[in-house]
Amino acid sequence: MFTCALDARSRVPLCEQLCAAFRAEIERGALAAGERLPSKRELALHLGVSTSTVETAYAQLVSEGYCESRPRSGVYVSETAPRPGGEKPEGVRVLWDFLTGAADAEHFPYATWARLMREVLGEQDKSLLLMGDAQGLPGLREAISALTKRLRGVELPPECVVVGAGTETLVSALVPVIGRERLFAVESPGYPRVWRILSTSGARLLPTPLLGGAIDPRPLYTEGAGAAYVTPSRQFPTGAQMSARRREELLRWSRDTGGYILEDDCDGEFRFSGAAQPTLRALDGGEQVVYMNTFARTLAPGLRLSFMALPQALVGRYRMLHSACSVSGFEQETLRRFIEGGHLERHVARMRVVYRGRLQAIERLARAYALGEVEAPQAGLYALLRVGGKTPAHELAPRAARAGVRLTRLADYGVVREGSEDERVVLLGFAGMGEEEIAKGMAALRDAWM
Amino acid sequence: MFTCALDARSRVPLCEQLCAAFRAEIERGALAAGERLPSKRELALHLGVSTSTVETAYAQLVSEGYCESRPRSGVYVSETAPRPGGEKPEGVRVLWDFLTGAADAEHFPYATWARLMREVLGEQDKSLLLMGDAQGLPGLREAISALTKRLRGVELPPECVVVGAGTETLVSALVPVIGRERLFAVESPGYPRVWRILSTSGARLLPTPLLGGAIDPRPLYTEGAGAAYVTPSRQFPTGAQMSARRREELLRWSRDTGGYILEDDCDGEFRFSGAAQPTLRALDGGEQVVYMNTFARTLAPGLRLSFMALPQALVGRYRMLHSACSVSGFEQETLRRFIEGGHLERHVARMRVVYRGRLQAIERLARAYALGEVEAPQAGLYALLRVGGKTPAHELAPRAARAGVRLTRLADYGVVREGSEDERVVLLGFAGMGEEEIAKGMAALRDAWM
Repeated sequence: MFTCALDARSRVPLCEQLCAAFRAEIERGALAAGERLPSKRELALHLGVSTSTVETAYAQLVSEGYCESRPRSGVYVSETAPRPGGEKPEGVRVLWDFLTGAADAEHFPYATWARLMREVLGEQDKSLLLMGDAQGLPGLREAISALTKRLRGVELPPECVVVGAGTETLVSALVPVIGRERLFAVESPGYPRVWRILSTSGARLLPTPLLGGAIDPRPLYTEGAGAAYVTPSRQFPTGAQMSARRREELLRWSRDTGGYILEDDCDGEFRFSGAAQPTLRALDGGEQVVYMNTFARTLAPGLRLSFMALPQALVGRYRMLHSACSVSGFEQETLRRFIEGGHLERHVARMRVVYRGRLQAIERLARAYALGEVEAPQAGLYALLRVGGKTPAHELAPRAARAGVRLTRLADYGVVREGSEDERVVLLGFAGMGEEEIAKGMAALRDAWM
Repeated sequence: MFTCALDARSRVPLCEQLCAAFRAEIERGALAAGERLPSKRELALHLGVSTSTVETAYAQLVSEGYCESRPRSGVYVSETAPRPGGEKPEGVRVLWDFLTGAADAEHFPYATWARLMREVLGEQDKSLLLMGDAQGLPGLREAISALTKRLRGVELPPECVVVGAGTETLVSALVPVIGRERLFAVESPGYPRVWRILSTSGARLLPTPLLGGAIDPRPLYTEGAGAAYVTPSRQFPTGAQMSARRREELLRWSRDTGGYILEDDCDGEFRFSGAAQPTLRALDGGEQVVYMNTFARTLAPGLRLSFMALPQALVGRYRMLHSACSVSGFEQETLRRFIEGGHLERHVARMRVVYRGRLQAIERLARAYALGEVEAPQAGLYALLRVGGKTPAHELAPRAARAGVRLTRLADYGVVREGSEDERVVLLGFAGMGEEEIAKGMAALRDAWM
């Protein structure tokens, strides 16, 4: 059993002492990648500390990339943990980040944003200092409505729009409005971050398999789902667009059962090939569909600016349950001017070109290095690469990590049939790196895998 | 039964049509203040629409101030609804706002804030564009820790601090971390907005009576509370500070049972008389107490800037459940500089003088107009006025409203013994008006009541 000396009188909290001890063991190689840490209860008894101390220490180690938690199994030393050779875990030393959640920080329109913010602060509009409307400034909601009409072809009545500080804030505000007692269907494979937000908000989840690239509506009936979170413009992580027929089937389910659809249209603005289907919200007219989108990708995640459009029938309930908008008045007004001045659309148009260039670089280099077959997305900011060569599927990410490349596998997002070709698919997000860095990252992957 | 013609084929949603019909009835006097609206189910049957349509319409009417909802009783035309004479509901025509939630918008340090924001945007620090730490920028957390030590004498380790977009966002992020299954004790009378946030977040509430001005710890044991939300620096709404002895009793309960205490220290910076007790967090050392505070009062509510300090043992769980901070990187960094430059403390010192002057104006005018007895708060931004004269208790707020004055009664925040003197106590918030407006509002109250 792992043993270390803990000092209960120290100013360093016990769980921090415990973390430090584990980090040292892992870094000197006494605990190797893949090894299971002792059960929390056993270790707590053994060391004479509370189970919650051990729990906190384990969570910390997981968040630092030293360990990983496997459901119903335990906590294991992570493949990407630092090795005796002095390598650091992936959280610490990432040279080339292909994570799909990364964001571009090179093209942010600082000058325009700063000018508009200066204007807003200079006018000293006192109303921006007060709490304001629970759904966000009416003027901003109108601007968002007009923008979404132009960019995505969907009518969102401004009185149905809710502005919020990021998807996490909006989804957790939405769950009690829709009803925490409903069963929330989610796509599997799907977007683990939203799964976690939903379940943290108290929703019960129904992971639902894909059928032909989009959520299968049949289990929604048989399992009694009351809501479904979907990504129709590009299913995450497979990248597929939901077909017109599946859209109809899903809307029929919502009409038949009164179920709500949460349509996450993130990245719908970045379409590189193929015709865009109308959004579910546009097809349904706003009866049962909550449309969600974010400025995290079209502008920057650090601004914490997202929005959703509720069905008319839920607006009253939203306002009963929530009385405050989570975004600063100054930033709301700055965003309003940014959109109304046409700056957002210009920025999106510019970034489409930038992103297309990066995608093409990935395709070109994957071919040149014979890394495998790229499935370019019709929309969205990552490509799928089916890796060729001899590296075993489970070794793809660890080898990449040791070469300084961070990426995820399709298999990280849900069940992938064992032995199937899908086990060899990795996701290459291209929002966070320029073409030059992408080229270096692709070269590092060649060296790691080939 | 109320009847109106609804057009199912109209582009105006049914619930909007229904709202409009009720508004018209109320405005022409066909439905008078105090009248009960038909039950939702009855009306839905009668008009041939769904119950949810009626529900939404009623909620809308309540949110507009036309109606009020009385628990377990129904929806009634509000005292402050527009009358046939053409008066508008309180939400529409408020000349003098003594609500306790109001905020000062006259003294915001625009020049400094704008200069710091310009600096931040000018430096183009790319890291502020990314998601950043789930608890907020480490530098801001350090600044908040140092500030709270100076202003409130409590040590908050920066690694325990969480920055969030307002109390609503923070409390709803906290509930799943503490555990939605716990029973949350709240003070009664207490702060209805926080009650609503807690219950929207899925917590079960235990309204707990006050004993000697602070929450009675005995029901916490007998009812099995697992958490308690308290306002020890000035109990809302009675204004009392929690005694040293009660603090000890409450902390003993938390140690005995493992219960968590949510200490809301809002307004703790604005103390006008009497010595401040040490915070519960300082007494407990951060084992069981979540300390919460906001910049809504010390700066402006529209900025949506609040923070809390978790017990060390909950930090890991917080980070497991939440991955994003809800405040923009630019605003976080601007606030950091604002605090570190000493501007926040200077602003608080200045506002203490401003607020003291307003409080004294209320005391002076209540005496001059013989309105009754003022119980000045030791801390916080409202006074309690025990109204003399002949106006019946239940007529105090409606008469004030008809004279253009918005205020609440102690009885609005929980049970007040019928026939007791407390029925005649109203709250006069003074954060939202200057001395001149306060004087006019007090004169309007004299005309309305005396």
